[in-house]
Amino acid sequence: MNTENGTNTIPQNAHTTSVDLVVPFSDIDGMNIVHHANYACYLERARVAWIEAHDQPYQVYIAQGNHFAVSHLEMHYHQPARFADKLCVTAWLQWVHGASLQIAYALHRNETLLLTAITQHVFVDQNGKPRRIPKDRRESLIRFATETAPTEQCERSL
Amino acid sequence: MNTENGTNTIPQNAHTTSVDLVVPFSDIDGMNIVHHANYACYLERARVAWIEAHDQPYQVYIAQGNHFAVSHLEMHYHQPARFADKLCVTAWLQWVHGASLQIAYALHRNETLLLTAITQHVFVDQNGKPRRIPKDRRESLIRFATETAPTEQCERSL
Amino acid sequence: MNTENGTNTIPQNAHTTSVDLVVPFSDIDGMNIVHHANYACYLERARVAWIEAHDQPYQVYIAQGNHFAVSHLEMHYHQPARFADKLCVTAWLQWVHGASLQIAYALHRNETLLLTAITQHVFVDQNGKPRRIPKDRRESLIRFATETAPTEQCERSL
Amino acid sequence: MNTENGTNTIPQNAHTTSVDLVVPFSDIDGMNIVHHANYACYLERARVAWIEAHDQPYQVYIAQGNHFAVSHLEMHYHQPARFADKLCVTAWLQWVHGASLQIAYALHRNETLLLTAITQHVFVDQNGKPRRIPKDRRESLIRFATETAPTEQCERSL
Repeated sequence: MNTENGTNTIPQNAHTTSVDLVVPFSDIDGMNIVHHANYACYLERARVAWIEAHDQPYQVYIAQGNHFAVSHLEMHYHQPARFADKLCVTAWLQWVHGASLQIAYALHRNETLLLTAITQHVFVDQNGKPRRIPKDRRESLIRFATETAPTEQCERSL
Repeated sequence: MNTENGTNTIPQNAHTTSVDLVVPFSDIDGMNIVHHANYACYLERARVAWIEAHDQPYQVYIAQGNHFAVSHLEMHYHQPARFADKLCVTAWLQWVHGASLQIAYALHRNETLLLTAITQHVFVDQNGKPRRIPKDRRESLIRFATETAPTEQCERSL
Repeated sequence: MNTENGTNTIPQNAHTTSVDLVVPFSDIDGMNIVHHANYACYLERARVAWIEAHDQPYQVYIAQGNHFAVSHLEMHYHQPARFADKLCVTAWLQWVHGASLQIAYALHRNETLLLTAITQHVFVDQNGKPRRIPKDRRESLIRFATETAPTEQCERSL
Repeated sequence: MNTENGTNTIPQNAHTTSVDLVVPFSDIDGMNIVHHANYACYLERARVAWIEAHDQPYQVYIAQGNHFAVSHLEMHYHQPARFADKLCVTAWLQWVHGASLQIAYALHRNETLLLTAITQHVFVDQNGKPRRIPKDRRESLIRFATETAPTEQCERSL
């Protein structure tokens, strides 16, 4: 994903899930636009919907004491969203590795691209310790990834 | 700044401003840690304090109808913060260019590095249109930058 | 409305508007329930929808420099909401007076009443100064009120 | 406390704790004032500080699986707070009963009263079930209450 120049497009082979939302007044800041931190919550909604659609309800992970903790977040803001805007947040899985995965996002208002983003997640147990993603879940997830996992070098640094 | 491997350190030549905060209960999520979106607000507090300490109170910009709108955000989460943790958020200016600047951050709990981040900002008028940073302000800011501005190529893409 | 003992029911003569929402993970707190402050934002969504359905889009008020500023809020929490709960927030107008109005709310998860609330609002101009609600809007609104306005004594204290 | 007419004053016999805070930009809404929901978080900070100062750190309750869950909230908004305002939130205990207590609040900007509020809390276990406040804690708390507990009738309705 190239977030720097705004040319991001959803890859042809992406398995996407989209959620619609209407910008509530409480998300607007003193610039009369959505405060930049709130987009992280919009991404989260699309991510949770993606996991439910392609894997299992996120509540099942929670019930087992697990989470995909956010380890890295990048958001590139192309255009601001405003009060009562109807937004569509699209998420897709980029890669899955032993204990981590990366999800990408594009947020639109009609045809206008407002934001592109990625989040990286580490699979953790109830104490927040990194754990390998269970084999069956990982094999299930990997079918929907748009990219192969990052290189060995990156993996070792986890 | 290398946020990927956690080796970020505050540059020797950085002009820093730090703010202390105690994690409020309302910032804790269902994982019993600070929800990852809230750190963007912690960064904002340090950024506002940095601007006041090195440039002028941010309210002066607002009163003139200007803002440093967030155009890009990256946060790398090394360790989670928890309820009542005493945090210190340090900000410094990395570079200033004609209409934009980049600020870097390190967030610690005592000696432990919890988060590193950068934000990029575009100077905008009251309609949200990008404008050149006023010359006097830019010359004032540039004295505190740790890096020279990004390359011409990057600048042209703004 | 009796919020104290939870026997609140939506009045027979209420003109209601309801909005559905799914509790996002970012609204969950360290008790694993929706943090109590977030309900004020849920109410706001139902209020904005009520105004659009019974009066005019709230954006029209904003475009004219007006707001219904919140002057009083009461929320009574009967049962907690949790992550991924499907909630329905119902709003109705209780009374309108010269420069103020009161809206009541009931929030359900299926048949279970989770929260009852009221908000009072003062009509303000762009400087935040209280203003009389424009006559045409007030006459339009008053048709949907479940109660006559508060007593003269209360009104005078505004 | 009379929140209706703004004549609230801190009772002479109140044992108060105050916290100072500076309004962050992220708390400002599209009216250029602090969004009304955020005050609930400001109250929470003062409440947590009061409990630590007069009882024990709130973390001790959490570590034992307990919470003072919010069951009722009233906020009366007298004047708005704005970006960078220096606020002082004062909390005091009004009454303690078998399984519940009420805290009152006054929020000032210098000498100006901006908000008065009360919160009621039910003591709960880790499953959210109401429990009697441990006798030693209740006896400790009751020394700092400004009022005797509510009537038997109210108590029975808990």
